[in-house]
Amino acid sequence: MKAVVLLSGGVDSTTTAYLAARSGYEIYALTIRYGQRHERELDAARAVCRELDVAEHRIVQLDFGAWGSSLTGQAELPTAGVGEGIPSTWVPMRNLIFLGMASGYAEVVGADAIYIGVGQVDYSGYPDCRQEFIEAYQRAADLASKQFVEEGRSIPVLTPLMHLPKSGVIRLGLNLGVDYDLTWSCYAGGAEPCGECDSCRLRDAAFAEVYASRPKS
Amino acid sequence: MKAVVLLSGGVDSTTTAYLAARSGYEIYALTIRYGQRHERELDAARAVCRELDVAEHRIVQLDFGAWGSSLTGQAELPTAGVGEGIPSTWVPMRNLIFLGMASGYAEVVGADAIYIGVGQVDYSGYPDCRQEFIEAYQRAADLASKQFVEEGRSIPVLTPLMHLPKSGVIRLGLNLGVDYDLTWSCYAGGAEPCGECDSCRLRDAAFAEVYASRPKS
Repeated sequence: MKAVVLLSGGVDSTTTAYLAARSGYEIYALTIRYGQRHERELDAARAVCRELDVAEHRIVQLDFGAWGSSLTGQAELPTAGVGEGIPSTWVPMRNLIFLGMASGYAEVVGADAIYIGVGQVDYSGYPDCRQEFIEAYQRAADLASKQFVEEGRSIPVLTPLMHLPKSGVIRLGLNLGVDYDLTWSCYAGGAEPCGECDSCRLRDAAFAEVYASRPKS
Repeated sequence: MKAVVLLSGGVDSTTTAYLAARSGYEIYALTIRYGQRHERELDAARAVCRELDVAEHRIVQLDFGAWGSSLTGQAELPTAGVGEGIPSTWVPMRNLIFLGMASGYAEVVGADAIYIGVGQVDYSGYPDCRQEFIEAYQRAADLASKQFVEEGRSIPVLTPLMHLPKSGVIRLGLNLGVDYDLTWSCYAGGAEPCGECDSCRLRDAAFAEVYASRPKS
């Protein structure tokens, strides 16, 4: 069995990659390099791929920094904490485009599934992390697919973290043996995590919650 | 009114761009450079943009040649004519990814519509040129869209050529004043059209049909 995994090198996608690997899939990891501030993520993705001994790791260049999101350097990163509404770190249609690339890659390598680590609980307000979007995407991808049109065979998009809070993701990952020291979450692009961006805050709070509830050893 | 137009520089997308411009839209043209053999298309797209005096022309680099299609140089181009089934020029998920990029761009510039020149009559057997796919895409893009989620506002994907044969596209274009000498269709990437690839064959047959039925002047 082969699975394409969208792997950014953060907590969610790394946990997802481990879950796919532990489920017996050969991993075809896909990392999109799209001019994000946090290129440090790419090194994290590479480290995870080495650790999981993946079949292949493709890093694909996609130039959509020009569209203006704080995540690609055109605006200030918000540091006031996760609030209401969709934040400036939103990159329009990011998951739709990334999934399209994953579906294309899956078709070419003959994959049985596509894994993406999105979730609608602690999702920073991005619309394309929700179950409803994933279902609509599946329909569109099926209808665009050679395999579906010729053989009726769909490549399912699997979202095992969809309904987990970030702390649940980390609990799951620790049970799967994920080494979170390999991962990278900070949006800011420094050598150390800034501790102030939304992504650092979500990560730090989740780890604090998980460790607070663990039995002392 | 603003419209994003996916513009390759071929007959269909050029006709579509003229139609959008003649309908009163300010044109935001989006050309994707994805390692296609026929880079000559890009010059055609630029020429069309000059002719239409577009508001903006973005050429975005997307590296998915690595996925293996004869259109991006990994296999021989078929020259035996358009047959049954999906040909080797198929680039998996191309229109899904291109539309995703168009939707992202449309959201950023505040466009009212997205135009794409796909059609299901002379469509070379590509599944993502069909009406059914476009409708599924619209749903997925809406659910991934900040504007839709926050304000209920959809950016419609318009496909004015959907039900026209290639000859109908050319008739429409000539009525809109399209200068087809600006356009480029050949897949082969030479200085002159090869006349043998599917795209040349469809184009040549359509022009022959249109000119055969025109009154002598």
